[in-house]
Amino acid sequence: MRYGIIGTGAIGGYYGSKLAHSGKDVHFLLHKDYEYVREHGLHVHSCDGDFSLNPVQAYPDTKDMPVCDVVLVGLKSVNNGLLSHLLPPLLKEDTLVVLIQNGIGLEEDLQAMFPHLQIAAGLAFICSSKTEPGVIRHECYGSINIGNYSCKQEEKVLAVRDDFLQAGVKAALVEYREARWKKAVWNMPFNGMTVALNTTTDQLLSHPSTERLIHDQMLEVIHAAQHLGVQNMHEAFADKMIQMTREMVPYSPSMKLDFDFQRPMEIDYLYTKPIEEARNAGFSMPKLEMLENELRFIQHRYLNK
Amino acid sequence: MRYGIIGTGAIGGYYGSKLAHSGKDVHFLLHKDYEYVREHGLHVHSCDGDFSLNPVQAYPDTKDMPVCDVVLVGLKSVNNGLLSHLLPPLLKEDTLVVLIQNGIGLEEDLQAMFPHLQIAAGLAFICSSKTEPGVIRHECYGSINIGNYSCKQEEKVLAVRDDFLQAGVKAALVEYREARWKKAVWNMPFNGMTVALNTTTDQLLSHPSTERLIHDQMLEVIHAAQHLGVQNMHEAFADKMIQMTREMVPYSPSMKLDFDFQRPMEIDYLYTKPIEEARNAGFSMPKLEMLENELRFIQHRYLNK
Repeated sequence: MRYGIIGTGAIGGYYGSKLAHSGKDVHFLLHKDYEYVREHGLHVHSCDGDFSLNPVQAYPDTKDMPVCDVVLVGLKSVNNGLLSHLLPPLLKEDTLVVLIQNGIGLEEDLQAMFPHLQIAAGLAFICSSKTEPGVIRHECYGSINIGNYSCKQEEKVLAVRDDFLQAGVKAALVEYREARWKKAVWNMPFNGMTVALNTTTDQLLSHPSTERLIHDQMLEVIHAAQHLGVQNMHEAFADKMIQMTREMVPYSPSMKLDFDFQRPMEIDYLYTKPIEEARNAGFSMPKLEMLENELRFIQHRYLNK
Repeated sequence: MRYGIIGTGAIGGYYGSKLAHSGKDVHFLLHKDYEYVREHGLHVHSCDGDFSLNPVQAYPDTKDMPVCDVVLVGLKSVNNGLLSHLLPPLLKEDTLVVLIQNGIGLEEDLQAMFPHLQIAAGLAFICSSKTEPGVIRHECYGSINIGNYSCKQEEKVLAVRDDFLQAGVKAALVEYREARWKKAVWNMPFNGMTVALNTTTDQLLSHPSTERLIHDQMLEVIHAAQHLGVQNMHEAFADKMIQMTREMVPYSPSMKLDFDFQRPMEIDYLYTKPIEEARNAGFSMPKLEMLENELRFIQHRYLNK
């Protein structure tokens, strides 16, 4: 299978490099560091062992890329509007696009853009970053869960999972909606609260008032998902997520890193869309709605967006 | 009538000085600037015309003060625990204590401390500050509403109002609970949100997401008050408060000034008590509860309290 990577950053760059390193045919779209990667390759500094790719099948524009069987999208979701012209050159009849992004509603919006496209969700559990051209730092974790959204060829989704497994990436198939909403249980409280209070996960949990708030916000997500008919959403999952976070190193979620580096924050898919989906079904998430409002103000004020 | 002032700051200092300037017998408790005031007097720089008091009946300790007919308390409510030993030297059988403070539950707590005390609420609508010893800056407004909490002598409350009127202070008698909760409609959103987002009232209203949030929080207060049986609480009051705030100069509420000057914030009476009162009656205020949690974290982190 031929893979295309749109967004060769901390996420797309990591998973694409792992696949290429295991011998898969992988084609990378690069932007700012295209020249660098063309000349010097891609370097992954990983907790599991460093490796490099050189040469890299790198492209400055999807128009120059071949059609692919599978496209992994690792863009920040704030740029998903670009997919309407980035994707078509890579598509053939049965291309599967995997959105390795955070949030709720991503697949719906892409499907509206491309009604016949086969789409899956990729849920990455990884600490990685790209801080210099062509260099990806993989700190810890690294698994990926794949949830089928609209792919009629179930065997294709299985094949992607198997390719990941062969590449040494812990991968599993999961139920799409359950996976997206379960990830939101962690993402919605911690991404926004670390920005709103300019802090890290451990600090939020070390103070009783914010620990309670994080827990309350997690319950809002769980109850919204239950209300929407998502399976296997139980209140105990909040306690499990808090316990897991306690065991992590002090952590700045991706939205906090975006804020710190003055990049636009993924407010739409992390907050607005799930809150709207719940509201349209008659369920309100007041504390996360307030957090969304605070983040919009912060984004406007500090990032001028 | 003899007046005692506990807390000769921006509030107690202003109203006490107005009364003394109009010829009333007023005795001031001073703390840090006792020596300065003893020597140089009290100076009020006021939008209504400057004036000074010299000499001032100033005391470093309530033990040295005479018993009073009326005591005006202008302390920050975080110091109300001190009243248990500050008040007794000033009290006689029928002393009326007027709490010119922000929040909900102040009178209840003082009554629990002194079960037979006559208490009223003073609701100040004023922009004033004390930035140097013995000097009070009165920027604008200045009226005071008085709500009788437990004073059996209605004529005494009327006499206090009349003394204020004679002193050139716009004063009126109001229904106690309605007045406290109506003030909370403005106080709860703006005090905390200007701290949480490190901003001013005009900025909060200039961005649609925070304007909506402020409005939502105002409705939480109004609905809580309705639920508690408070009279004359209508949703339209939120619009009126927002419109009034738009017409004000960009404003930092008292909690924002406390935060900026690293003084402890009045979280207990501005948030915890009203939220608890509503919760105990079965009504929840999720957005203001979240704001309370954020403020506790901020207070702990920046003020070490």
